[in-house]
Amino acid sequence: MNSESFHTIVIGAGSGGMTVAVGMATLGYSVALIEGAHVGGDCTNVGCVPSKTLIHLAREFRPGDDPDEVLRTVIRKRDALRDKETEEVRHMENVTFIEGWAAFQGPHTLEVQQADGEKRTFTGKNIVIATGARPRPLKIPGLPAERALTNESLFDLRDAPKHLAIVGAGIIALEMAFAFHKLGVRVSIIALDERPIPRAIPEASAAIQNELERRGIATFYGATADSYDEATRTLSIRRGEKIIPLPEVDKVLIAIGRMRNLERLNLEAAGVRYDSRSGIAVNHYGQTSVKGVFAIGDVTPTSAFTHSANAQGRRVVQYIAFPWMPVSRREPLYPNATFSDPEIAAVGTPANEQNCHPQAVRRIRVDFKTHTDRGYTDEVENGFIIVDAVRLTGRIIHATIVGPHASEMISFFTLAIARGISLYKIYRLVYPYPTFSSGILKVADFFMQETLTNLPREAGAYLRYRFARP
Amino acid sequence: MNSESFHTIVIGAGSGGMTVAVGMATLGYSVALIEGAHVGGDCTNVGCVPSKTLIHLAREFRPGDDPDEVLRTVIRKRDALRDKETEEVRHMENVTFIEGWAAFQGPHTLEVQQADGEKRTFTGKNIVIATGARPRPLKIPGLPAERALTNESLFDLRDAPKHLAIVGAGIIALEMAFAFHKLGVRVSIIALDERPIPRAIPEASAAIQNELERRGIATFYGATADSYDEATRTLSIRRGEKIIPLPEVDKVLIAIGRMRNLERLNLEAAGVRYDSRSGIAVNHYGQTSVKGVFAIGDVTPTSAFTHSANAQGRRVVQYIAFPWMPVSRREPLYPNATFSDPEIAAVGTPANEQNCHPQAVRRIRVDFKTHTDRGYTDEVENGFIIVDAVRLTGRIIHATIVGPHASEMISFFTLAIARGISLYKIYRLVYPYPTFSSGILKVADFFMQETLTNLPREAGAYLRYRFARP
Repeated sequence: MNSESFHTIVIGAGSGGMTVAVGMATLGYSVALIEGAHVGGDCTNVGCVPSKTLIHLAREFRPGDDPDEVLRTVIRKRDALRDKETEEVRHMENVTFIEGWAAFQGPHTLEVQQADGEKRTFTGKNIVIATGARPRPLKIPGLPAERALTNESLFDLRDAPKHLAIVGAGIIALEMAFAFHKLGVRVSIIALDERPIPRAIPEASAAIQNELERRGIATFYGATADSYDEATRTLSIRRGEKIIPLPEVDKVLIAIGRMRNLERLNLEAAGVRYDSRSGIAVNHYGQTSVKGVFAIGDVTPTSAFTHSANAQGRRVVQYIAFPWMPVSRREPLYPNATFSDPEIAAVGTPANEQNCHPQAVRRIRVDFKTHTDRGYTDEVENGFIIVDAVRLTGRIIHATIVGPHASEMISFFTLAIARGISLYKIYRLVYPYPTFSSGILKVADFFMQETLTNLPREAGAYLRYRFARP
Repeated sequence: MNSESFHTIVIGAGSGGMTVAVGMATLGYSVALIEGAHVGGDCTNVGCVPSKTLIHLAREFRPGDDPDEVLRTVIRKRDALRDKETEEVRHMENVTFIEGWAAFQGPHTLEVQQADGEKRTFTGKNIVIATGARPRPLKIPGLPAERALTNESLFDLRDAPKHLAIVGAGIIALEMAFAFHKLGVRVSIIALDERPIPRAIPEASAAIQNELERRGIATFYGATADSYDEATRTLSIRRGEKIIPLPEVDKVLIAIGRMRNLERLNLEAAGVRYDSRSGIAVNHYGQTSVKGVFAIGDVTPTSAFTHSANAQGRRVVQYIAFPWMPVSRREPLYPNATFSDPEIAAVGTPANEQNCHPQAVRRIRVDFKTHTDRGYTDEVENGFIIVDAVRLTGRIIHATIVGPHASEMISFFTLAIARGISLYKIYRLVYPYPTFSSGILKVADFFMQETLTNLPREAGAYLRYRFARP
């Protein structure tokens, strides 16, 4: 069998894979892009794009509007973008687009099973694995398949449910809880975790929980979905020994985490090292254990965001095309954002997770409602900026923002942390009034007050704890 | 007559004055705060606070809602904040609050005419002038006083007009045009300028003009309000030789600029140098020509924003209380923000206004709709990030953002410009997806592409023009 040869082969046409394919092709290299499902991957098809379209439309939704119309608009816009991206991929210079599933036969050889049954073999100087992840399934006894949803089927819904039960309390779960609730859908959250967005700092979870309660979204923490009775359409929730019946549930969204798409790849044939729990091990350039084989995005242990996959993809392009260009050996800072209402965004590592003594760090909290005029005019009940900074020096190590536009404001802190800019410098800047970001100045204010009025204490704490073990 | 003595006397209890009074009092100094009108000044009473409350409520407004109810809510919230601030001022430790109008009798002596007719004399080691500005009046022949509004009377309106004519095309004019239009009010703009927000870059004006037209807000540029006929309620607009009748106008908002409040101060008695056009001259510490007399905010030539007055106030406090602390001799960067829809925000000095050769600078433009997925999901028709950066080095000198949350995103660029962070560094950061701020990465992308693929040309241009005269 003949094999076709490329400079770079990318497996998976999601956000990360597309970044590499477009990047390498633009630089003039021959690229094969292999995709078994849809171009655009999770983001375009079942992730950010439809979810943010839905969130945007839900924000504008008013009583009396038609929720089904909203869901159909989401499908229409998603399909239009998918078609556009697919067409672009088919006609991109230097890119050969192959529809099918790829499996390694050796470190630089792939066999692709096409949809039409044909098998083809490809060799590549560089192979980039970007196969992403899929929702972790959950079997709920008695629940008919047509009532069970994941993010993969959610955005094909054409009719809004009456009562949506969401299993899970992570990012997808919370984003969809707020959006569907705005469409007039009754929403209940069932989660094993003890709080919403368990990976956020507890203060953020508390703010979100306040909002859930204020809006009348029911939450059952430390609980599991036990079974479903079709006759009465009742979802039984188990919390310890107790069974709580949740009546009139017509759809159940399973959002309990994700699994990496590793199985079809036959990684053993390439000798690529991986762990079924944490995925394919990579260094900061995206290199796997095999030279010339890279992995990016959700198949790696790195943060599972579209922007993280893109950032990894950019590094791989830079490493392959410009190996002489310096790349920081440090992992870049990956901010995260949850488009709940209020939004949550964070960057850096909170004080308690740092490899440093908690006493070396000061946590500053500014509440929008009480500390900024914009929080007053816009009546922001649950929103804040929390910053962890090293005592005395004011070096920022972490920031979490909860509130309107948090996802836009967080990049200020990404820049500040990445460039080592202290709160003293941030104190000197002027922020437009009346914005939420003027709260950043308040953070610096509070830090300065605490520090300058207690200089001996702060200096002592710095000297004692800064280089102490946690 | 006895005179009362204070460490610091502040004339004017607006944003700037309050910053100084609170700052000095907190540090333990005896402060007299003199105010002839309302505590909170323009911002609380007739500026940012009521206008942003109105803008926020107008955004939520839907056909069928009651616009009068919105206006009354604005009044209620404004009054509540004013009362709260007034109470706080009355009971603030170390602050003596005096209601009346102050005039200099000498460099450190003030006579205050109280509302009750009593006259008192005060001496202060430091005197801070923060008397602000007021709307520039315009007489329109035939227009009854009760139909003429400025920002000082606008937020006492309890009934929405049917057709609001706005004279002027600056920040206040445009903010109110969009807000009242959302309340279902017919809005027409008449301005001598040839474009909206004439102090913004032309691209921003063009985007705003597109939005005005899309929404059906009529605009008459290069035009003046000539006369008003009460019988037919017609406002006659003059454009060159042509007279255009604008029928059914029931209110006219005059927003053609502002005048500094200098007249009552008797600055000559103190010897404080000023210019009736540009205001009281100050250095970067806010010092006037007389030692111990300072001026901040709208009475100075500096940018006329609440956040600028606050920043100047902070500098004065620092200078008086901590004279040993270093202050940058450079004026801080004053960002500006217009809360139109879309918002406009800018920081730095555009290429064509810089004291450098235009060929030394590259202007990068990223449109949200075409270059970011968030612009696609949120259907942002008129929005962009424009960055002016020095060729080759990528040092940013100016940024303008038009679009949702522009006022929140601009602080990223304030930080980048203030700290001299180039587009190369900005290129390395990760931005949450899908946000508008991921457009910042696109700006860096475009700059890198232009630069790295044309290195000799860019290096040549840099060497030729960077130090050339414009």
